[in-house]
Amino acid sequence: MRMYDIIKTKRDGGVLSKEQIDYFVKEYTNGMIPDYQVAALLMAVYFQGMNEAETLALTLAMAESGDCLSLSAIHGVTADKHSTGGVGDKTTLVLAPMAAVLGVKMAKMSGRGLGHTGGTIDKLESFPGFSTALSEEKFIQNVNTIGMAITGQTGNLAPADKKLYALRDVTDTVDSLPLIASSIMSKKIAAGADTIVLDVKVGSGAFMKTEEAARKLAKEMVRIGHGAGRKTAAVISEMDEPLGFAVGNALEVIEAIDTLKGNGPKDLEDLCVALGSYMLVSAGKADSLEEAADKLRGTLKDGSAYEKMIEFVTAQGGSREDVENPQRLLHATYTDTITAPKTGYIAHIQSEEVGLAAMTAGGGRETKDSVIDLSAGIVLNKKVGDFVKENEPLARLYANDKVKLEAAKNRLAGAYSFSEEPVPARPLIHGVITEKDI
Amino acid sequence: MRMYDIIKTKRDGGVLSKEQIDYFVKEYTNGMIPDYQVAALLMAVYFQGMNEAETLALTLAMAESGDCLSLSAIHGVTADKHSTGGVGDKTTLVLAPMAAVLGVKMAKMSGRGLGHTGGTIDKLESFPGFSTALSEEKFIQNVNTIGMAITGQTGNLAPADKKLYALRDVTDTVDSLPLIASSIMSKKIAAGADTIVLDVKVGSGAFMKTEEAARKLAKEMVRIGHGAGRKTAAVISEMDEPLGFAVGNALEVIEAIDTLKGNGPKDLEDLCVALGSYMLVSAGKADSLEEAADKLRGTLKDGSAYEKMIEFVTAQGGSREDVENPQRLLHATYTDTITAPKTGYIAHIQSEEVGLAAMTAGGGRETKDSVIDLSAGIVLNKKVGDFVKENEPLARLYANDKVKLEAAKNRLAGAYSFSEEPVPARPLIHGVITEKDI
Repeated sequence: MRMYDIIKTKRDGGVLSKEQIDYFVKEYTNGMIPDYQVAALLMAVYFQGMNEAETLALTLAMAESGDCLSLSAIHGVTADKHSTGGVGDKTTLVLAPMAAVLGVKMAKMSGRGLGHTGGTIDKLESFPGFSTALSEEKFIQNVNTIGMAITGQTGNLAPADKKLYALRDVTDTVDSLPLIASSIMSKKIAAGADTIVLDVKVGSGAFMKTEEAARKLAKEMVRIGHGAGRKTAAVISEMDEPLGFAVGNALEVIEAIDTLKGNGPKDLEDLCVALGSYMLVSAGKADSLEEAADKLRGTLKDGSAYEKMIEFVTAQGGSREDVENPQRLLHATYTDTITAPKTGYIAHIQSEEVGLAAMTAGGGRETKDSVIDLSAGIVLNKKVGDFVKENEPLARLYANDKVKLEAAKNRLAGAYSFSEEPVPARPLIHGVITEKDI
Repeated sequence: MRMYDIIKTKRDGGVLSKEQIDYFVKEYTNGMIPDYQVAALLMAVYFQGMNEAETLALTLAMAESGDCLSLSAIHGVTADKHSTGGVGDKTTLVLAPMAAVLGVKMAKMSGRGLGHTGGTIDKLESFPGFSTALSEEKFIQNVNTIGMAITGQTGNLAPADKKLYALRDVTDTVDSLPLIASSIMSKKIAAGADTIVLDVKVGSGAFMKTEEAARKLAKEMVRIGHGAGRKTAAVISEMDEPLGFAVGNALEVIEAIDTLKGNGPKDLEDLCVALGSYMLVSAGKADSLEEAADKLRGTLKDGSAYEKMIEFVTAQGGSREDVENPQRLLHATYTDTITAPKTGYIAHIQSEEVGLAAMTAGGGRETKDSVIDLSAGIVLNKKVGDFVKENEPLARLYANDKVKLEAAKNRLAGAYSFSEEPVPARPLIHGVITEKDI
């Protein structure tokens, strides 16, 4: 088999065989095929696409390129969640305890943030002493005893995806549906969960800017998950403004704990319920989505999800006191507010800009090697549709560097637009894709 | 400027600026841009194409990436010829002396053969003692005194093209009109001649299989030449059967000398006259194409072109005796013929297969490093349209290795097809593209 012929087949609009895909993924991972040939292939895929069988084969080849976690030692149905990346998205911190209370085994592998989107691992590191690098043994043990564990990527998961993604990143070939879908799903499949629930964000702050694009990606990923023998569903959710009010690591932990106590923002709670409902039904813990939703909301009302959060944090090395008094996690020397430049309705908050403002304040990574300030970030006072008077506070910023705070303020101010007319509400959930829809 | 943005612009169907093209060609040649980014760009160009301004900018950037020959020390109008590569194409050996006799300064840089097509430099090396590596000084001196010189590539001509071509070769991005045209023209422009006449071959033995494709390439190259300030014309010529009868280095030299004596095959002579006519008119050595053609044929009749050949060969180290008795150049231990399997008209001789058969006999290079047997090759007895009786000889093969000879025989036999009906003649010249046509 020759890489040259594989490139030519795809360049000319042909279909790659499973053997060809296995060959190129394996040999590229082993360093036997040079970057430049793979770059040419990726650009050909960008133009010619891949059919369902090719995309599944690519996903499986990447999933099998490294370690594949076996969760068979876990008693019960395991579930994993993945978000395509949003601003203020602390869903995992809320959803995982809720679902764990109801008997879903949340074996969750998470990542760090980059650019304008945050990562669960960073957020959890706001808890002093918290370990985000569990051994596989400890990870499985915690899921079995507590019902949940969240760890950074363990072992050598999908190294082919890592290598291919790095190449796509520098060759302008990120933006290809089969490549995006297979990249995400390869890691989820290698991570081993029985059920995979995907949160596909759509809007100005999301990777997918239009509902059509988000729906296509959701379908593609559900199709792959199904093809790989995993129960998979995708919720298409709004990311045209930040989720909840808090953006920044410690700030988001505080908001997540408020939500677990039943005092969180409605959009955040609703999204967690939507995502969790599919998990519960998939895991056989509820007969209908409605029943599942009721049970999930119940865990917030009766305090059981909050208690599970304490159990989870302490099991991974954090302290109960920090969950009970999460304001202790915040160490910001400087704080300031931005105010409304005029009276009117908030028409739009560009969430990508809010994310970048939080990053500018110190709370996000510009490059993989940036050191982040876990206390830096933003708390919105108002969201889209709210009426504000001139000079009324719109948001508060937190930082430990005055220059960064000023820069973040300027950036954040530019994220808002206003209207004299009331602004119609946009739905939070744009749709759900399950195996029936593919 | 970032290579990433250049890739993205082209991927998205945009137009690259001259600054962007200059940047990427320069920095790639300097090793500052990695192969994988250029591979992605080349594949994007394959899909999105390049407009006229981009193609010209790319050509000039490649031409200027290394040494540019200055032919200003040559008195008179200099001319160069380029063929896109044919089988049995010994045009340069005939045309250069003809044009030189008539006052056109033939400053010709030639290459070696690869695959099924031959190269002028290899053919000339059939003359013992002949030097194909002239210094720039000697090259210019010979053109001034004799009116012609032929040398292998001198100096560091268009290194960007060399590097890009090597990458295209392994990333399936050879087959792109702007990339093909700019690659050929960059070398011709760097080689410095005032007038460039292109021989674009079309047919089964050519790179361009259809007349439409050949015409497009011809137009693109004439446009580039014009844009670079060179008088440029392209003749689209038949390569559906070999040119003349001889295929193989020494064998082609013998046929070229026969032609210079006025005893050559009609197709070869006609093509040389067609190509040369544009040179003469461009150089102001004839007022019309008709007058130019008459003058060119005159150099064959009066022996002046043949005398010029002797002058040229001896000036570059060959001996007069070898030109006068060119059969001395042939040292083939083994020879054999193939015969007609049935009575009828020759319908087609697949020239690519004839070229490959000659290569198999030892006369061509499979890879750049192959050592070739200058005496190996084929002389056809019959061409398309000829009537043959069963068992009548079709062609004679020459080799110095019995196994190679047998393999070549088998290959050659497969190149023929026959018809019971007379076969209509195909025109030799399919068209001419000049500056008026672009």
